[in-house]
Amino acid sequence: MALPDLEAFPARTWGSLVARHGYHMQPWLRGFLPPAGYPPLRQAIARYLSTARGVRCIPEQVFITGGSQQGLALTGQVLLNPGDAVWMEDPGYRGAQAALQSAEARIVPVPVDAEGLSVAEGVRRAPNARLAYVTPSHQFPLGMAMSLRRRLDLLEWAHRTGGWILEDDYDSEFRYRGRPLTALQGLDEGQRVLYTGTFSKVLFPALRLGYLVVPQPLTQAFGAAAFTVGAPPPILEQLVLTDFLTEGHFERHLRRMRRLYAERQEAVLQAAAVHLNGMLELQPDEVGMHLVGWLPEGADDRAVSERAIAQEVRAQPLSNHRIEPGGRGGLLLGYAGFPIPALQAAIRTLAETLHNP
Amino acid sequence: MALPDLEAFPARTWGSLVARHGYHMQPWLRGFLPPAGYPPLRQAIARYLSTARGVRCIPEQVFITGGSQQGLALTGQVLLNPGDAVWMEDPGYRGAQAALQSAEARIVPVPVDAEGLSVAEGVRRAPNARLAYVTPSHQFPLGMAMSLRRRLDLLEWAHRTGGWILEDDYDSEFRYRGRPLTALQGLDEGQRVLYTGTFSKVLFPALRLGYLVVPQPLTQAFGAAAFTVGAPPPILEQLVLTDFLTEGHFERHLRRMRRLYAERQEAVLQAAAVHLNGMLELQPDEVGMHLVGWLPEGADDRAVSERAIAQEVRAQPLSNHRIEPGGRGGLLLGYAGFPIPALQAAIRTLAETLHNP
Repeated sequence: MALPDLEAFPARTWGSLVARHGYHMQPWLRGFLPPAGYPPLRQAIARYLSTARGVRCIPEQVFITGGSQQGLALTGQVLLNPGDAVWMEDPGYRGAQAALQSAEARIVPVPVDAEGLSVAEGVRRAPNARLAYVTPSHQFPLGMAMSLRRRLDLLEWAHRTGGWILEDDYDSEFRYRGRPLTALQGLDEGQRVLYTGTFSKVLFPALRLGYLVVPQPLTQAFGAAAFTVGAPPPILEQLVLTDFLTEGHFERHLRRMRRLYAERQEAVLQAAAVHLNGMLELQPDEVGMHLVGWLPEGADDRAVSERAIAQEVRAQPLSNHRIEPGGRGGLLLGYAGFPIPALQAAIRTLAETLHNP
Repeated sequence: MALPDLEAFPARTWGSLVARHGYHMQPWLRGFLPPAGYPPLRQAIARYLSTARGVRCIPEQVFITGGSQQGLALTGQVLLNPGDAVWMEDPGYRGAQAALQSAEARIVPVPVDAEGLSVAEGVRRAPNARLAYVTPSHQFPLGMAMSLRRRLDLLEWAHRTGGWILEDDYDSEFRYRGRPLTALQGLDEGQRVLYTGTFSKVLFPALRLGYLVVPQPLTQAFGAAAFTVGAPPPILEQLVLTDFLTEGHFERHLRRMRRLYAERQEAVLQAAAVHLNGMLELQPDEVGMHLVGWLPEGADDRAVSERAIAQEVRAQPLSNHRIEPGGRGGLLLGYAGFPIPALQAAIRTLAETLHNP
């Protein structure tokens, strides 16, 4: 997974909020927390998601999780029975697969094309799947947005069969150009869609905070199960994040990171145009923290990735994210976490690696 | 569950550690954490458990969890397949039951007597159970320690059948008199025993930190699964707790709380001797944060508890912790979290409630 820039994090602002709550926490706040999380944080997140992503929810639908894996595990626990079929994007996020598989679900890989997950192919492979896991804003790892037509097809499938959709909106905060489609959840008013996101990428991974928005009729079942999986996360991070969101620091941080990451993506594309021409095919991406570099047909991306890592360039092979083997090889190039000179040097190293097999 | 004293928590010391790490965290610490937790904390916990509880482990066996529920869920995920039988103490901790049930295990209630879980009855009901969940230091909720003979019987069963034992040592830090038996885990050198504990009671519940010590041959499987369930907890709490343990604050805090809670238990027993004679039978307990008050044979503890709650005395009915119905009724009286005058008033209110059905 792509790392944000840890040096550019507003450590002083965050530190002052941490110190404020570390010293002045009301004793009662140290007691048992509601498993769904600290209510003012649920409210702040509901407000943010409504404004920024078109998610339709009330705070009671928002569950604070210890990172998105916990939200996925919770979803599996509440919605899935052993043997239930689950559509997974292929290629897709293997962490989600692991979490849902732990509910003993049967994973059904569904191919992704230029419009996102192929709903027709999902229906052909497992018409009565219980859940479809999708990344409609910015497909992981390929990067396309799911088309409106596909979104409507997917919702139609869910309503017709009683299936659930789990929308993972893992990095759409970083949009550099164009206007986003609103969340799939908002298109449906959240009737069949669960919506999850994380602060690991917009803030930092070791914060271990995320959220899960569930349809209103499911809030009680999720509330009962949340405690069982280890929710909620600690009170301190919840208090600090509430202030960070409501005092305007979050918006400011996002704006700064958008500028920074846009420049970095541009630098990678320019360096690639000079050094990688014909060896690794890159396209600009309006969103996110990584680019996919496509290798020539037939190239073994795992072997290339290993050689790159030996030169200290960490570029994951696309194959690691495929469920069914085959398909064109590629490398995932995370650019958000590194200054431009380091990115340029990495592209040059990658070019040498590809030149000398 | 019994609450610790939130007002007596060393808020200033803790706050200064929080502020220290909040302001001066190294940027790289904000990145991806190892799923098993922050290595210096794993080391500090291994050292503490070895000294205080006779647990035998190296730091690599220690997993930092977001509270004991996460450790239980993780155990279920790694060790249990759907339909596997699990011995649960009856009465016992229902949170553990919920976590293990979420792995689709088959819960087998096993009665508890004066020596703890009846191993013979467990063998009679499900000889090939995959896991036995026990609280040998201080049975929850009844409070006895598991006898050495039973411990050896249980270990013999585990070695003979290849079963696992999950030892939940949830509150044995608060020992007021006598010498503790060391952890069951230490008796076996941890070959068949997983050992779990929490900082919810020794520090505060909203901290959301616990640990799970697994046998050495299982470390790899648990490492792979930890990420899936949402481990580890945030870095900040892990840094703060490491300092709190290694700088001596933890030992000091424990000593203070032991004195405080011992006085409170004594006050409850004295007030009960005066006001509750013949209505609620209480015994001193060498360990823990609550007492069991036994009602006369045939009394309905749920009804009594409801009437007490109506008078703002929160005393959980013992029946809530039973899997199989029946058995003598009782109330759980958590005393650790309240000053003596409040405890005395609560006992008087309880006496009135019991007098006037």
